[in-house]
Amino acid sequence: MNNNESDRRRFIKKGVALASFAAVGGINSASGQTADSPAPAKDLEAYGERSHFVTSARLAPDNNDPFGLTNHLFTPLQDSVGIITPASLHYTIAHRGFYVPDINPEQHRLMIHGMVDRPLILSLADLKRFPSVTRTHYIECNGNKPKPAYKTVQRASGLTSCSEWTGVPLSLLLKEAGVHNGANWIIAEGSEDNKGAISLPMAKAMADMLVAYGQNGEPVRPQNGFPLRLLVPGFEGICNVKWLRRIKVTDQFYMTYNDMERYTSVNAKAVKLNYEQGPKSVITFPSGEQQLPERGHYQITGLAWSGSGAIRKVEVSTDGGKSWKNAEIQSAVNRMAHTRFGMDWNWNGEECVLMSRCTDELNQIQPTLAEFARFWNKPIDFILTPFPGGMDGHHNYILPWKIGRDGNVKMGFA
Amino acid sequence: MNNNESDRRRFIKKGVALASFAAVGGINSASGQTADSPAPAKDLEAYGERSHFVTSARLAPDNNDPFGLTNHLFTPLQDSVGIITPASLHYTIAHRGFYVPDINPEQHRLMIHGMVDRPLILSLADLKRFPSVTRTHYIECNGNKPKPAYKTVQRASGLTSCSEWTGVPLSLLLKEAGVHNGANWIIAEGSEDNKGAISLPMAKAMADMLVAYGQNGEPVRPQNGFPLRLLVPGFEGICNVKWLRRIKVTDQFYMTYNDMERYTSVNAKAVKLNYEQGPKSVITFPSGEQQLPERGHYQITGLAWSGSGAIRKVEVSTDGGKSWKNAEIQSAVNRMAHTRFGMDWNWNGEECVLMSRCTDELNQIQPTLAEFARFWNKPIDFILTPFPGGMDGHHNYILPWKIGRDGNVKMGFA
Repeated sequence: MNNNESDRRRFIKKGVALASFAAVGGINSASGQTADSPAPAKDLEAYGERSHFVTSARLAPDNNDPFGLTNHLFTPLQDSVGIITPASLHYTIAHRGFYVPDINPEQHRLMIHGMVDRPLILSLADLKRFPSVTRTHYIECNGNKPKPAYKTVQRASGLTSCSEWTGVPLSLLLKEAGVHNGANWIIAEGSEDNKGAISLPMAKAMADMLVAYGQNGEPVRPQNGFPLRLLVPGFEGICNVKWLRRIKVTDQFYMTYNDMERYTSVNAKAVKLNYEQGPKSVITFPSGEQQLPERGHYQITGLAWSGSGAIRKVEVSTDGGKSWKNAEIQSAVNRMAHTRFGMDWNWNGEECVLMSRCTDELNQIQPTLAEFARFWNKPIDFILTPFPGGMDGHHNYILPWKIGRDGNVKMGFA
Repeated sequence: MNNNESDRRRFIKKGVALASFAAVGGINSASGQTADSPAPAKDLEAYGERSHFVTSARLAPDNNDPFGLTNHLFTPLQDSVGIITPASLHYTIAHRGFYVPDINPEQHRLMIHGMVDRPLILSLADLKRFPSVTRTHYIECNGNKPKPAYKTVQRASGLTSCSEWTGVPLSLLLKEAGVHNGANWIIAEGSEDNKGAISLPMAKAMADMLVAYGQNGEPVRPQNGFPLRLLVPGFEGICNVKWLRRIKVTDQFYMTYNDMERYTSVNAKAVKLNYEQGPKSVITFPSGEQQLPERGHYQITGLAWSGSGAIRKVEVSTDGGKSWKNAEIQSAVNRMAHTRFGMDWNWNGEECVLMSRCTDELNQIQPTLAEFARFWNKPIDFILTPFPGGMDGHHNYILPWKIGRDGNVKMGFA
């Protein structure tokens, strides 16, 4: 038995002592269910719902987007278990027009054209005649930026979610179309008012992009691009074009609406090529505004992911980064996917700071805030400025949680 | 290019020719979305819903249970994609009382007692202090019996579903409690009126049973046992006790309500030990009552699983079992989990019979109906009698689909 098991046993023994009246009283006292409910209503037979005791919800903060067009909905990571995000709780940003297009799938078409031998116009039924693949991938918005002003893991890190996606490899469709030599780019376009087009490298399209029609075993949800979403595993969220309707094969990067209006840079092309996100992890319990009821044994748990592939290792520190221990990987490890980690922890009731850091299959290590600031050559204060403001890029620095003596959890940036 | 790719290309070329007016008319014509909808309602911000164009539903057939207590809801496998079943569409049977208990998770407790050193009474919060694991597993009711009278894959095979389950390994809880020598059984009890208890072997409990509180990233759904379900991977559905509230450690098999009232046998113990389900697969497209619109290229797709471990191979026949070709495995392969397969197929417009068969990691091969009948020493007619009637056991014989010249798909039992 190691120390953690010993700690846990002490905690559990205490639990039994506290609850022993129930054991004496017989097994009936140990069960807390209320009276049976009536037979399920017809609509619950057709399509079930969660318990009315479960109220986990996405967060829609006040619109703090200076462009006035963005509706951010943050996934409640503090309630997450496992690695799949329920589709109803998947983060979403309406970034290229506020409205969700209401698309009739029977009428929807995907066009593939440009530098190809055989332009294609495909219905959903056509797409389902191709071999499908099913893969688990996260998506994360680069607007997911931990800042001291954001008090919860939902607000600081909830612009990422993970789903089982089903669809057709884009490489298969491109081979079907016959791509010309020298066609090194694709321009992917959605169905929003402004078309939400974006330029993406052909090498990535051929490697692992997916034209997805399925999400967690059912059609992609409207807020995530129904009926078709382009999956670009590991690239920042905005690349994963929703309501996909067109892919143009070209020999050059296009300056699209998004590039011009929202992502302007002195060197737009170089910035846009920096799509691949680095290794990142976050502790979901205990996390901001949660409360530890007492000293004793807990399970620290969280999620880790990398745009470069699989997570190889997650470490946890309970002393603000002075020492680190390997966490346990507690789920399947998929490439470019959330991975669940956990670690036994005995809280002694003293103030402390919890951190997690992950290492991916390329041996990239999640940076500290100081390392991140050095890499981007910015002052730490500038990086921690609340949105709007700050800078572009994938904010993957370590997020610390400070446990107070009262058991309350707060943002731990020094 | 193999023949299938060549076939598909011919199909696709035809598709483009038919649709070329749209291409000439410009890309706008290729998009079918209707006008933008208004901003999402507040409740859709909190917890999103599927498109109103998506109407896939569970099937609640007329109550054909002679005991009058059973409410079967069948998963719409014909609409399935990937391997996860959406929790809203997970099959369910209220088998030990018609009602779904409405349990307050704050009040619910799990008791572990009997032949143990330290009886435990655990709240949900207590359970979350233990290390969790997340695993993808199918569950299937042994009432899932393909019969000629059932016209669709939903009615013939829809009493199986697959989820990502998160919880605590039961072995960890049993070690915490300290199991006595000679304690070779556990009796698991739910919260139904009749407690729904069942006897299960200790070896399986120590191997891979899970006390699950999470399903597809959120709390287990009420119809699947909220807040706690016992997962017994690969064992028939009834072993996976819902609304779990008690585990008694014993040295013997108990005759419980279910065993006496519903599963009586001359040798109950021997029958009950036959819990582990064999290899099984089913084609979900094309399947019963679906319609192929025209001759040409299609993707045959379906699900395969085994109670003994991982699926190693799936074969598909398009000539009623005379010849077989390896299908493509199109998802992750998890032990005791649905696995997605697919195969390119060019339908020449003639009548034909489609079949799938799978092989698992123990090299067990899914049997034909004739092999299954021989094994159970029953006439085929007896096995194909609609429920109620027939026999116990896992009905994993091959299910044939017959394609008519009109493209209509029917049950293919000779």
